[in-house]
Amino acid sequence: MNTIGLGIIGAGRIGQLHLDNILRFIPEASVRAISDIAVDHAKAVAEARGVERVHADSAAVFEAPDIDAVLICSSTDTHASFIEAAAKAGKHIFCEKPIALDLETIDRAVKAADEAGVALQIGFNRRFDPNFMEARRQVADGAIGTPHIVRISSRDPEPPPIDYVKVSGGMFLDMTIHDFDMARYIVGDEVEEVFATGAVLVNPAIGEAGDVDTAVTTLRFRGGTICVIDNSREAVYGYDQRLEVFGSRGMVCVGNPKPHTAVHSGRDGDAAPPLLHFFLERYAQSFVTELRSFIDAVRGGIAPPVTGADGRAPVVIGLAARRSLREGRVVRLSEIDPG
Amino acid sequence: MNTIGLGIIGAGRIGQLHLDNILRFIPEASVRAISDIAVDHAKAVAEARGVERVHADSAAVFEAPDIDAVLICSSTDTHASFIEAAAKAGKHIFCEKPIALDLETIDRAVKAADEAGVALQIGFNRRFDPNFMEARRQVADGAIGTPHIVRISSRDPEPPPIDYVKVSGGMFLDMTIHDFDMARYIVGDEVEEVFATGAVLVNPAIGEAGDVDTAVTTLRFRGGTICVIDNSREAVYGYDQRLEVFGSRGMVCVGNPKPHTAVHSGRDGDAAPPLLHFFLERYAQSFVTELRSFIDAVRGGIAPPVTGADGRAPVVIGLAARRSLREGRVVRLSEIDPG
Amino acid sequence: MNTIGLGIIGAGRIGQLHLDNILRFIPEASVRAISDIAVDHAKAVAEARGVERVHADSAAVFEAPDIDAVLICSSTDTHASFIEAAAKAGKHIFCEKPIALDLETIDRAVKAADEAGVALQIGFNRRFDPNFMEARRQVADGAIGTPHIVRISSRDPEPPPIDYVKVSGGMFLDMTIHDFDMARYIVGDEVEEVFATGAVLVNPAIGEAGDVDTAVTTLRFRGGTICVIDNSREAVYGYDQRLEVFGSRGMVCVGNPKPHTAVHSGRDGDAAPPLLHFFLERYAQSFVTELRSFIDAVRGGIAPPVTGADGRAPVVIGLAARRSLREGRVVRLSEIDPG
Amino acid sequence: MNTIGLGIIGAGRIGQLHLDNILRFIPEASVRAISDIAVDHAKAVAEARGVERVHADSAAVFEAPDIDAVLICSSTDTHASFIEAAAKAGKHIFCEKPIALDLETIDRAVKAADEAGVALQIGFNRRFDPNFMEARRQVADGAIGTPHIVRISSRDPEPPPIDYVKVSGGMFLDMTIHDFDMARYIVGDEVEEVFATGAVLVNPAIGEAGDVDTAVTTLRFRGGTICVIDNSREAVYGYDQRLEVFGSRGMVCVGNPKPHTAVHSGRDGDAAPPLLHFFLERYAQSFVTELRSFIDAVRGGIAPPVTGADGRAPVVIGLAARRSLREGRVVRLSEIDPG
Repeated sequence: MNTIGLGIIGAGRIGQLHLDNILRFIPEASVRAISDIAVDHAKAVAEARGVERVHADSAAVFEAPDIDAVLICSSTDTHASFIEAAAKAGKHIFCEKPIALDLETIDRAVKAADEAGVALQIGFNRRFDPNFMEARRQVADGAIGTPHIVRISSRDPEPPPIDYVKVSGGMFLDMTIHDFDMARYIVGDEVEEVFATGAVLVNPAIGEAGDVDTAVTTLRFRGGTICVIDNSREAVYGYDQRLEVFGSRGMVCVGNPKPHTAVHSGRDGDAAPPLLHFFLERYAQSFVTELRSFIDAVRGGIAPPVTGADGRAPVVIGLAARRSLREGRVVRLSEIDPG
Repeated sequence: MNTIGLGIIGAGRIGQLHLDNILRFIPEASVRAISDIAVDHAKAVAEARGVERVHADSAAVFEAPDIDAVLICSSTDTHASFIEAAAKAGKHIFCEKPIALDLETIDRAVKAADEAGVALQIGFNRRFDPNFMEARRQVADGAIGTPHIVRISSRDPEPPPIDYVKVSGGMFLDMTIHDFDMARYIVGDEVEEVFATGAVLVNPAIGEAGDVDTAVTTLRFRGGTICVIDNSREAVYGYDQRLEVFGSRGMVCVGNPKPHTAVHSGRDGDAAPPLLHFFLERYAQSFVTELRSFIDAVRGGIAPPVTGADGRAPVVIGLAARRSLREGRVVRLSEIDPG
Repeated sequence: MNTIGLGIIGAGRIGQLHLDNILRFIPEASVRAISDIAVDHAKAVAEARGVERVHADSAAVFEAPDIDAVLICSSTDTHASFIEAAAKAGKHIFCEKPIALDLETIDRAVKAADEAGVALQIGFNRRFDPNFMEARRQVADGAIGTPHIVRISSRDPEPPPIDYVKVSGGMFLDMTIHDFDMARYIVGDEVEEVFATGAVLVNPAIGEAGDVDTAVTTLRFRGGTICVIDNSREAVYGYDQRLEVFGSRGMVCVGNPKPHTAVHSGRDGDAAPPLLHFFLERYAQSFVTELRSFIDAVRGGIAPPVTGADGRAPVVIGLAARRSLREGRVVRLSEIDPG
Repeated sequence: MNTIGLGIIGAGRIGQLHLDNILRFIPEASVRAISDIAVDHAKAVAEARGVERVHADSAAVFEAPDIDAVLICSSTDTHASFIEAAAKAGKHIFCEKPIALDLETIDRAVKAADEAGVALQIGFNRRFDPNFMEARRQVADGAIGTPHIVRISSRDPEPPPIDYVKVSGGMFLDMTIHDFDMARYIVGDEVEEVFATGAVLVNPAIGEAGDVDTAVTTLRFRGGTICVIDNSREAVYGYDQRLEVFGSRGMVCVGNPKPHTAVHSGRDGDAAPPLLHFFLERYAQSFVTELRSFIDAVRGGIAPPVTGADGRAPVVIGLAARRSLREGRVVRLSEIDPG
């Protein structure tokens, strides 16, 4: 297999990001077609980048014989059915997270991909951030020993629109889900128990929409590791994404990268620049590496690094966290997913 | 009132530390007598520093007319009765933490001091650490806005002897109690609810003694602030004491001070020195400022900065944390202290 | 003017770098042809990137009517004559540094571009590094006040081959020339006087080739600013590029960016990663911004940000430094360039 | 020999500092007498600290049989004659820097101490700063390899009074002399050649007094190491004292310690505190260690760590720097000190 023929489902912000990254950095893949129900928008996106085929109906992408794999970049509620359609058509699949917000739908989609024997990679891009990859490497190499305590801070620079909050599935499934995945990735173990606490401290409208904007979640892993995640919808100083793994042999801390290294010293002390604004800047490199890993997996006929099971597990944790918050008690994952 | 006459009850490590600090840095106070049941040891301590009077019986200290205030530096189980004796004798009191491990005893001691009209300061020295004082100053000045999330990491370099673990009252009352006090000090509010989770990951013998060596505790304050504290009995890289306050207007992070600023760069990267070993090194300055604040309060006839109520509150939180850990559920402080 | 038609002269490492950057990040420009005397190599480079026209003779590039501007990426000894040929053909010019190693040749080339009315930008890419741009911004904004002292550390990870050293013009014209440009850029003033001292401490073969491998150069600017530059051909810990401007109102320090932010803490202390290896990694972003600024200048009909005069001045300083080293004395720039 | 009996000559700021440090931290020494021509001031100093004997005439100190060693803390112009007097009386000598500003006087004083067989330690306290000690340790241990380049930044927070500037001997003998000593200490080699350049950028009155307020000095050591020192009389951000040693095996950088570790993050970025104000705060620890090392040397009958020769060498460098600045040329130390 030489160049991988790609189709992109969804020409929104994330679809364009992947498209540009492929054009710039991944010559082993070629985007052959784009589909989007907003077909005029998709045409403009495609034309600006020299992609020739644009379809309103994704079926045209699934049917095209020169397309080996699809990138599902549409809205969350369509992910699972597109996975099933792609699997049926024998296309390899990269799908943005989450697959769905309920386990039944997720299981059906993952099963479809499994049975079709196609690769399925879920878009947990932070696993490919060079800073977190180094932390994972140190854990995997034994430099930390047995992980005892993991701390994750994950704070957005500003809350999403209230209309989005209402359909997002709640903070745990929308935002913390990335951190649940990160925790599993870093520790290399499965979560057993969740305790979540939260508050509405940023914007009362978020509370009125039935959600929280500030949360602290404690995870217990099977092997004993305790992980604590704190989230806020609004860090005025920027997009704050830090991680720390503490274990029997040491600790690794991942700090926030900065836009530049210049520090000013004046009468009032030292001043360093604010953080990178949000995920597009902070995780720019991770999106490239993520796609490359998918293309490499497809070309090499090997399993992708983030599987359907990896897509499912953080949803289970998120559902448990949501229940924990509502009921004010520890929730075991087996309550959510009796298995 | 000119020089404050002091008596020290207990000539162990912490008693000697205070004694040396007074001799070196607090000319406004004069240590007139030391008492310790191990009177020979106390004599050696006193002689090396030019303190003339040494007693086996603390009563001699309480009765001495040239003694205005006492420093209670004996073992925890004796604190409350020494407070009562000192109060009865009309002496001002500095007492190491905790006053006691049960509320009834604490209440009796605090009441005795109140009724005698003597000053009572409890030895939560970390409040006087210049790093944490600066964080508190920023919170108090409004530079952080409303505190939303507080993170405290507090990890010892090595576990205490198992014999000590057995009588310590458990990790929450022995070690985390400092962090409970820090949380109250930094946030300036009262805790309402506690959830604690813990594990035995460092040394199985600690588990056999009925305690944990690794813990994560979540506190909810009345005003909505969520605080998360992580503890370990063994950080191989040294005594790790960090704090972070995140709020509506920004964040303040307190890192670990280092023994020196020299950084080596070589083929393998940059190497900076390990942390200060333990609390005597890390908090050296805080012990001086703490005592000075007590002497200033006594001389000025003003209330000491860490009151009996401040000594009581973290014990309530610690008892709640212990119950939370045992019962695997959130515990409200009102369950411990119906008030 | 819409898309700028480009020709690239020289398909070596730096030519390929610019080519890739244009293809990836600068859609406003289109590479129409490449020339290189090593035409087979150039064909392979072009083919891999979809550039259609490849010539052994640069004349074909200069004559092409669809080419608006050329990037001169060939060896230093050919720069000036290519500038003259391009100017004669009315093409705008981006030329790698240095224009030449003697002033007569430089003057002839710059004059040719001036008289032809074409844009000429010299490839001092470090001016476009985001870290140094921020330092320059702070100086220009007055945040530093009047610059008093500038410190530049510029150290390579390993020496070049001895054969290259022999034809390089010496350390000052090959390596320090970037720092001379940086000093002018940052201070915004002209150098008046140079004192250079050097030694052979890395490799005796460099000394046998008539050069030094370690040097400290002091520059005095007309306005009084003193700049000190230290260079080494071999920093075992990687490519070290730092700058500091100290002035009447404060200081700005630019440190080395790191490949990731993960720091390990263990028994021996903290370990952070080595520096980025060399200039391709360290200055990756600067090369993109540099080319974009050239294309913007050509499209906008405005003066490029690094002029022929900017290409000439550091050569004057370099010649003065070389003489200073040889004669062990301060050399005024007017001795080199009576003007 | 048990407790060392000390006499202090000069009850000014530095004399009091040593006195307090001995009382607090060096029980092996006992201050028996103080002398100062301002005897009333000295009496107040002594009384506040319980020193019983105070003399207007230093002879009384030199004659006292219970005094083993003297600390000469008087003004610079009296250092040499007090050294001679103390040597004649058989007292060991700690003398503040510099011994004198001319070599003849220095040589006479050092010779007197040598011939009397008494210990003579010169007060270059920065050698005892824990940060610089660690850098020296790394050089001595071989962790840096052969030193190639040393960089020292040494900047005061504010200029001294003009009246002081006039009698100070000039910036190189007053301020840079500490850095000359530091360079020798760190490299462990002797300077051969000096080039100094300077300017009046802070305050024209300093220029009118015949001095500079900004300087960059380059030293060449016998073994080839190049050291560059930059000085300013006014760093608005505080007392800036940094050092870097770059060598064949790596680099060690010593940064400025900070008053606390709290960093604020807000909309405008990160803010860290200003530097410690001046040398009393920055070098507080070094003064204690310095005195302890002197007392240890006297008690152990061993050579003190900073000898008369160490007191002389930086004066030679300073005189060479002054001549270099005046004559605008490189000055060899053999011109100053034909040896």
